[in-house]
Amino acid sequence: MRLYSMPSSGNSYKIRLLLALTGRRVEVIDCEYGSPALAEAKLAGALPYGKVPVLSLRDGTQLAESNAILWYLGEGSNFMPDSPVVRAQMLGWMFWEQYNHEPVIAVRQALLNYPHRAADATPARLAELLERGHTVLEVMERQLAVSDWLAGSEISLADICLYAYTHTAGTRGGYAMDRFPGISAWADRMASMPGYKGLHG
Amino acid sequence: MRLYSMPSSGNSYKIRLLLALTGRRVEVIDCEYGSPALAEAKLAGALPYGKVPVLSLRDGTQLAESNAILWYLGEGSNFMPDSPVVRAQMLGWMFWEQYNHEPVIAVRQALLNYPHRAADATPARLAELLERGHTVLEVMERQLAVSDWLAGSEISLADICLYAYTHTAGTRGGYAMDRFPGISAWADRMASMPGYKGLHG
Ligand SMILES: N[C@@H](CCC(=O)N[C@@H](CS)C(=O)NCC(=O)O)C(=O)O
Ligand SMILES: N[C@@H](CCC(=O)N[C@@H](CS)C(=O)NCC(=O)O)C(=O)O
Repeated sequence: MRLYSMPSSGNSYKIRLLLALTGRRVEVIDCEYGSPALAEAKLAGALPYGKVPVLSLRDGTQLAESNAILWYLGEGSNFMPDSPVVRAQMLGWMFWEQYNHEPVIAVRQALLNYPHRAADATPARLAELLERGHTVLEVMERQLAVSDWLAGSEISLADICLYAYTHTAGTRGGYAMDRFPGISAWADRMASMPGYKGLHG
Repeated sequence: MRLYSMPSSGNSYKIRLLLALTGRRVEVIDCEYGSPALAEAKLAGALPYGKVPVLSLRDGTQLAESNAILWYLGEGSNFMPDSPVVRAQMLGWMFWEQYNHEPVIAVRQALLNYPHRAADATPARLAELLERGHTVLEVMERQLAVSDWLAGSEISLADICLYAYTHTAGTRGGYAMDRFPGISAWADRMASMPGYKGLHG
């Protein structure tokens, strides 16, 4: 298996974190924005939709979408709940992440940190993303104020998925994380898991 | 089980369509925009995030997110692929739907058809959503030009998920569906499935 992964991207980091936590190794091709490697991977047809992450299987099958790759690599692991109800709750958080969280929390971080996005980082857009992001984080806080993990009573793929862009929401995104003590304690629990690796770790 | 469902909404229709195709019946509470039923459901705490669809289980557990509910109701059915790789491809299409398709194809339909969204339906926004939507539909077309179904060789939850807002993209969204013969043939295959029900059927 080969993972096409962007070092600075939370969507790619989700997969690297799951691999680290499950002690698995795969070949990783770093495809940073603006790098020859990203351009080459696109030209070679390695990225079916031109986006990373992509997991390329031994038979050539290309899996896209970070959360679908998480699912594929997570089957049979401790991060996959046994209960059908908890599995559905876990997937609920993961769909919610793509629909409500990533388009706000990740986008503000991208606008603030990627030079090629700077032109879109108008004060009005940043202010809108700040306000919407605090509302989004409040939804996670409601859960994490009363539960150690997002779905059920154990860590699951939902926690890995949402950790990716949440743990840098303060430092890279300017969100006021001191308003969310439940999220902060959860992020600390994540970072103390055996095998844990940081975004650039 | 009880389903809180919006009659005019594709996200709710996904669930109603899966129930129809699998011959299952659940109690359905219609919560249309502006209806007393929607306001009551919100007040009663039946909609954890204020959004439909929500599936309420016998023990009171509330499942949100249309695609997670599809998964829950689809486990053990013909719409759940046996192969882990095809399951991941199916989920890939479903995450892609929430990230790339729904925020464009469904939003243009909402702007054009819901009176309470008319103020947002500026010519510039409609034009942008039209162009982006054609690009999104082209991604589906690439798959459906060479395959009867989105994931693997059988119908799956991915087809039900993406059918919901795609089959009305022309009539309600103004997209030029004659450019996408593969999608049109696929939509006809969907509509001829035993048990099929239309959006308002
Ligand atoms: N929904 C997709 C999003 C993938 C995506 O947008 N990836 C970005 C980096 S975060 C990318 O590959 N950009 C490269 C490009 O657009 O050239 C996922 O979760 O995998
Ligand atoms: N990502 C969610 C979206 C749910 C959603 O936005 N539902 C809309 C109708 S399509 C809603 O409930 N609106 C009611 C309201 O905002 O008051 C899903 O797939 O279930």
